Amino acid sequence: MGFKVGICQFEPELMQVETNLEKMESFLGSVSADLIVLPELAASGYLFNSEEEVLSIAEDPRNGPTANLFQKLAKQHNTSYVVGFAEKTENGIYNSAMLVNPDTSIHIYRKTHLFFEEKKWFNAGDTGFNVFSAKNNIKVGLMICFDWIFPESARSLALAGAQIIAHPTNLVLPWCQQAMITRSIENGVFSVSSNRTGRERNGDKVLNFTGMSQIINTNGQIIHRMDKNEESVFVTEIDPLESDEKDINEYNNLFLDRRTELYKL
Amino acid sequence: MGFKVGICQFEPELMQVETNLEKMESFLGSVSADLIVLPELAASGYLFNSEEEVLSIAEDPRNGPTANLFQKLAKQHNTSYVVGFAEKTENGIYNSAMLVNPDTSIHIYRKTHLFFEEKKWFNAGDTGFNVFSAKNNIKVGLMICFDWIFPESARSLALAGAQIIAHPTNLVLPWCQQAMITRSIENGVFSVSSNRTGRERNGDKVLNFTGMSQIINTNGQIIHRMDKNEESVFVTEIDPLESDEKDINEYNNLFLDRRTELYKL
Repeated sequence: MGFKVGICQFEPELMQVETNLEKMESFLGSVSADLIVLPELAASGYLFNSEEEVLSIAEDPRNGPTANLFQKLAKQHNTSYVVGFAEKTENGIYNSAMLVNPDTSIHIYRKTHLFFEEKKWFNAGDTGFNVFSAKNNIKVGLMICFDWIFPESARSLALAGAQIIAHPTNLVLPWCQQAMITRSIENGVFSVSSNRTGRERNGDKVLNFTGMSQIINTNGQIIHRMDKNEESVFVTEIDPLESDEKDINEYNNLFLDRRTELYKL
Repeated sequence: MGFKVGICQFEPELMQVETNLEKMESFLGSVSADLIVLPELAASGYLFNSEEEVLSIAEDPRNGPTANLFQKLAKQHNTSYVVGFAEKTENGIYNSAMLVNPDTSIHIYRKTHLFFEEKKWFNAGDTGFNVFSAKNNIKVGLMICFDWIFPESARSLALAGAQIIAHPTNLVLPWCQQAMITRSIENGVFSVSSNRTGRERNGDKVLNFTGMSQIINTNGQIIHRMDKNEESVFVTEIDPLESDEKDINEYNNLFLDRRTELYKL
């Protein structure tokens, strides 16, 4: 089954939501795909210095500027999108990602494992690792950035039936891109990591993001990896149903061979 | 704390136990180290064609030729060794590894996840993922070859307190060496994968082993990786206590940040 999946790597500007949404719209306007994954906190930028700054850009998950734009794009292009945003709720702010479908339905994942100073402004996610239906009923599991270092994240999504792990990131450390190959191999799933690029400053703080957004197949092969600095969209055709096959030879199955009674959690 | 850890990569001959033990003894005779890891089924070779062949080389775990040799070497050189062997028991044969200490104590791990035709001759391991004391009371966790693809293996050992994962292998697929970097990073442990090299034939079957035995530090850096074909011993000094530090920055801890209530097992 042909399914066109894409990554969109770009450099958001810190707290310039309107500018960032315009930039994404211009990148996505001419692209035909079934699912496109965008970076973590794509609309807001990343390097906050206070809870007030985060509050100033946090959005309603169903009726904020990011939801509104992607519902419009999803309908217009008949595409599902996964995009990171700061989610404003009655209980506080989450580092979240939304899956927006052509029927304008929205599914939310809240980052489980917060990285570094994110713990100062975001609540730890409480949604857990759920799998949602994207376009064509393809099963998509969401995790965000630092969730990668905990093998339980991708494992939980795969056990829940994810065919594609959609992974918005704002990576600054060098390990994740390689580790996601392992995540695809050990779970027999496609993984689509969309990273931002560029540099962000705020007061004394500076971060350099590592780009190298990538799409990995169920055998751990790199279908495509962007370079560190490019801003672009890449789309390729995959067969998500390959993820349903957990046999790796006639004797071994990635899931059935698990011996949960011997594992420590 | 300085602790000299080593890998011994060589080519065993199928079912030539005496020859293989002599080869290991000659490799290890002049080497000074605290812990040396040898390949899976190092004494017997790998590519069996029948249960009878396996039975013919399976050993008593406490009083077989492999146990006897390594007890002698451990005492003589004041070194702990981890070495793979076919373990004969009243209940059948296991693909096992023994940790042999200078005090001649022996600890056994039985391979949890059997690969391919191993399922025809070996029982699935029933020991689970335990951590044993090696020389200087360093905590060593054992896993064997294909256990690598299940993140729960290394995770269970790390949660049980392993400072070093000792990983005898007979690898024929290309993914493990890279994945073990992820295993070290995600668990903050040293990993020592000792692979065999060479080619084995038995009847119509042929296997080419991938060598590239390696020692990875707690940050996922490759301290040393052998090439595909060399037969040699490499020893380096590490500080196993670095594994006890699971903080990766002032906000994040690899273990305390785990959110087991959200994970699927």
